[in-house]
Amino acid sequence: MNAHPRLPATRPRLPVTDRTRHRRLREQGSLDRADLDAVLAAGFLCHLGVTVDGTVMVVPTVYGCDGDTLYLHGSVASRSLAADPDATVCVTVTHVDGLVLARSVFEHGVNYRSAMVYGVPRAVTDSEEKLAGLRCLTEQCTPGQWDYARRPSRKELAATRLLALSLDEASVKLRSGPPEDGEGPDAELGLWAGVLPLHSSWGTPEPDPALTEDIAVPPHIARYAAR
Amino acid sequence: MNAHPRLPATRPRLPVTDRTRHRRLREQGSLDRADLDAVLAAGFLCHLGVTVDGTVMVVPTVYGCDGDTLYLHGSVASRSLAADPDATVCVTVTHVDGLVLARSVFEHGVNYRSAMVYGVPRAVTDSEEKLAGLRCLTEQCTPGQWDYARRPSRKELAATRLLALSLDEASVKLRSGPPEDGEGPDAELGLWAGVLPLHSSWGTPEPDPALTEDIAVPPHIARYAAR
Repeated sequence: MNAHPRLPATRPRLPVTDRTRHRRLREQGSLDRADLDAVLAAGFLCHLGVTVDGTVMVVPTVYGCDGDTLYLHGSVASRSLAADPDATVCVTVTHVDGLVLARSVFEHGVNYRSAMVYGVPRAVTDSEEKLAGLRCLTEQCTPGQWDYARRPSRKELAATRLLALSLDEASVKLRSGPPEDGEGPDAELGLWAGVLPLHSSWGTPEPDPALTEDIAVPPHIARYAAR
Repeated sequence: MNAHPRLPATRPRLPVTDRTRHRRLREQGSLDRADLDAVLAAGFLCHLGVTVDGTVMVVPTVYGCDGDTLYLHGSVASRSLAADPDATVCVTVTHVDGLVLARSVFEHGVNYRSAMVYGVPRAVTDSEEKLAGLRCLTEQCTPGQWDYARRPSRKELAATRLLALSLDEASVKLRSGPPEDGEGPDAELGLWAGVLPLHSSWGTPEPDPALTEDIAVPPHIARYAAR
């Protein structure tokens, strides 16, 4: 009997493919599915790589994650979401945590967490699933907002393209901690070395100047400024 | 005679190509070269899109900008920097400034500044130019660090690949300000709407625990925590 029924006996591992194999800096690669989930849960902006008219295009866009699916959305007129339906795309999510300032320029680096997801996205056409996907996207950016704001009308749904991408093929890379030349000959240079942390924080909500009434900031938004 | 000799009589415009033409949300597109320079100067992390073995790959990496050239670097063993030497890549730099919370889910968006640069990168092999490019990269991340840290040795230079990408073909998109449904029928829903700003800030420098002596944080680093 498992003493910790909530924890799986073995932590799920990410399958390794030719695309997701960590070839260099293997110590920064993770095969832990929990790391993938954590990187994706910590953000809402990704960079979508697609090929349009034979050229690679890297487009910043928001995403949402629900279980084993990553959702992307945009206008039905968007070129980046309407690329070849059989083509593999790459979605990358990156969080920069700090600059690694070593004694030598060569050993400088970045503390970061990043995930790359490869796959052929599926266009979601079913209205129910489309609404669920848009809810997921909305809640990833701003939890609580789906239940607060007006939901998409039938016309708005028709104008929105939603793509679903499986998380089956993904790669995670992480780096944290101090520089690595503290044990080598450069340590004797007498130079300062360390990490310069980079933080992201939410500011005070700025009301739309067009608000005619005195409408209070709803609690699910007010909560942000304290995060 | 020009009363403001430092300002050019006409602001330089970005040339429009089939790849950089703003097709959708044209009000968010900018052709102002100064906007491109400002977006690139405000960051140090980009997402590089390349095709490796027939698949798009989006790799987070640092960059440096010097005049009309963007520099990228990495190990000579890196696959993403050693792709087809004739292939066009796309480098995207994105800054997220806030979430645009409208009355309707459909009008939600992101305040952001982003640049996409297209081109065929040139591998820099000349040692002098390589050092200048690495200096540019180092200074983009941490101004002052090139003159402080130990510079690359001949062996380290040989292990480093440096790519130079022209800024000739680039596209800029910007969005700022409140949501846009304050004038429409949704304004009568009585819902709060506005912007939730997102800020980036540097934290207190964290000394490498391997520092054996009491070495003060140098001024060019100490200055960060105050920014």
